[in-house]
Amino acid sequence: MEKVALGIDIGGTNTKYGFVDAQGKIYGEISIPTIMKAGEEPESFEQYIARLCAQAQQTLQDCGQGLQLIGAGIGAPDGNFFSGAIEFAVNLPWKGVLRAAALVSQHMGVPTALTNDANAAAMGEMLFGTAKGMKDFIVITLGTGVGSGIVIGGKLVYGHDGFAGELGHVIVKEGGRMCGCGRRGCLEAYCSAGGVRRTVMDLLAEETTPSVLRDVSFEQMTSARIYEAAMEGDPLAREAFRRTARILGRALADFVTFSSPEAIILFGGVARAGEFLRKPTEEAMEESMLHCFKNKVKVLLSDLGEGNVAILGAAALAWDAYRGQSEEKA
Amino acid sequence: MEKVALGIDIGGTNTKYGFVDAQGKIYGEISIPTIMKAGEEPESFEQYIARLCAQAQQTLQDCGQGLQLIGAGIGAPDGNFFSGAIEFAVNLPWKGVLRAAALVSQHMGVPTALTNDANAAAMGEMLFGTAKGMKDFIVITLGTGVGSGIVIGGKLVYGHDGFAGELGHVIVKEGGRMCGCGRRGCLEAYCSAGGVRRTVMDLLAEETTPSVLRDVSFEQMTSARIYEAAMEGDPLAREAFRRTARILGRALADFVTFSSPEAIILFGGVARAGEFLRKPTEEAMEESMLHCFKNKVKVLLSDLGEGNVAILGAAALAWDAYRGQSEEKA
Repeated sequence: MEKVALGIDIGGTNTKYGFVDAQGKIYGEISIPTIMKAGEEPESFEQYIARLCAQAQQTLQDCGQGLQLIGAGIGAPDGNFFSGAIEFAVNLPWKGVLRAAALVSQHMGVPTALTNDANAAAMGEMLFGTAKGMKDFIVITLGTGVGSGIVIGGKLVYGHDGFAGELGHVIVKEGGRMCGCGRRGCLEAYCSAGGVRRTVMDLLAEETTPSVLRDVSFEQMTSARIYEAAMEGDPLAREAFRRTARILGRALADFVTFSSPEAIILFGGVARAGEFLRKPTEEAMEESMLHCFKNKVKVLLSDLGEGNVAILGAAALAWDAYRGQSEEKA
Repeated sequence: MEKVALGIDIGGTNTKYGFVDAQGKIYGEISIPTIMKAGEEPESFEQYIARLCAQAQQTLQDCGQGLQLIGAGIGAPDGNFFSGAIEFAVNLPWKGVLRAAALVSQHMGVPTALTNDANAAAMGEMLFGTAKGMKDFIVITLGTGVGSGIVIGGKLVYGHDGFAGELGHVIVKEGGRMCGCGRRGCLEAYCSAGGVRRTVMDLLAEETTPSVLRDVSFEQMTSARIYEAAMEGDPLAREAFRRTARILGRALADFVTFSSPEAIILFGGVARAGEFLRKPTEEAMEESMLHCFKNKVKVLLSDLGEGNVAILGAAALAWDAYRGQSEEKA
């Protein structure tokens, strides 16, 4: 029997899941809508979890007799590891404290752990990805928001209440750009997908450089579109990534003073810009770095496919708990 | 037999040591000069350690037959836990890598651990001080420099190379004040004793407020003198602490996003300003804080006497190692 962990990634639109073995191979990867109706009414959170687990049971059966479920892990925005609940989630249709881990555990009959998506990504990188074998690293997720998962001594940092690792919300510019969190100058306002777009807007205003992006509206200006322009050699698009990288790199130099990691791993939509982002980020980090850290910390791009990492990360959470338990017994 | 650990605090001018029992009681506290001559020449580092240990052996004998030495701990500027050596120390007369832990261990015949003074202070707070019983907290030392010791899950954070916790060198103001580290805008340039003095200089330049500090030269302007003036009601001195607190509080809000600690403990010369510093620091932190951390993180003043904490912290390092070992055996 091959042991597998169920990895669940709860998103605002879709929920993805799959069964992951100890080597990171995924069986039965499925995506279902997060929001559905039950009769006339939208489903309750309990109904949603029941539907999700029924389907996951079915998928497990469809995969054949060879798989033994050892646990489940859930990655969800604003998921709290300690409470096993999703708290303050802004992009889910349900309000209040959503006890996702307990409900999944009931339905699936296995121990279930939950954390936020950035922490899950870090766990995925450690068990199956770029951070394999590392004990001290930070994953920065650069997507719709900017998140982080911090690993110290081989353990994810949760803090005393489960909310550690909100590095998207360090203030990088006093009185700077408005952030979704209601404050000003957060890293997220500069280095998320929306942040890169806002930087393009700044550049369109400040510079007279010709650019294909002058024909793109604010709403159409995705980070993918900007990356495409950069690939085509558009100087303004390239400058937008350089500016993003400069701000990110300086922030990374500050993060390094905290935990002195071996590497910082960039992940998410904005990181798809690859070397356009990674190289100037590393340069800016080195330039701002305190002497004792210089030339020691790698800036790496995640090598996990973005579609998979959420499932791998969530499953890694279950694997980590399972191994911890096995070690305790031994 | 009472078990004790030898705690050694190596400073640029004096070296203090004492024997500390499991409850934090200190026996035979002694201060000796760090720098002495051996004949015509200044002592080598090896000679210094030999002299220190011979004297410590004598002190232990003088304390009577009741004490059993279980280990030694050393707190030293730029001390590295992993290598057991003092590296890049700017305020000691010896150059190169100083293998303090190995030498002390040889002379004293017990396991010896070493770390920097801020980490030692954090360990002291956890075992004997304000952080007793806490598992997630940060100690900020506000003295000649600004240092930090970060505890996560009951363990000091050393990072992958032993240099974690250099929070005095996060950049709080881009292109700001020159810092001793050669860069600009570090927290240390604002919140160390020298930083408070520089803030007084700023205020003397900017404001016309009368102040007793207008009669004090730059060289005479210690943080103790500024505190004295604040106590006497001097508005400019009080404003200097408020400004210091504002910058510190904002930085603390960023630190919280990293490890979500239960408390932040202020320690060192500048923290002697007490509520003049603590209260506006807490206010500025709360004001800058991300919603999910608001009203959760305490800002506390260390309750360990400053004279003792270095010895207690160094000894705590030895106690922590000793207990770790005992647990492993058990």
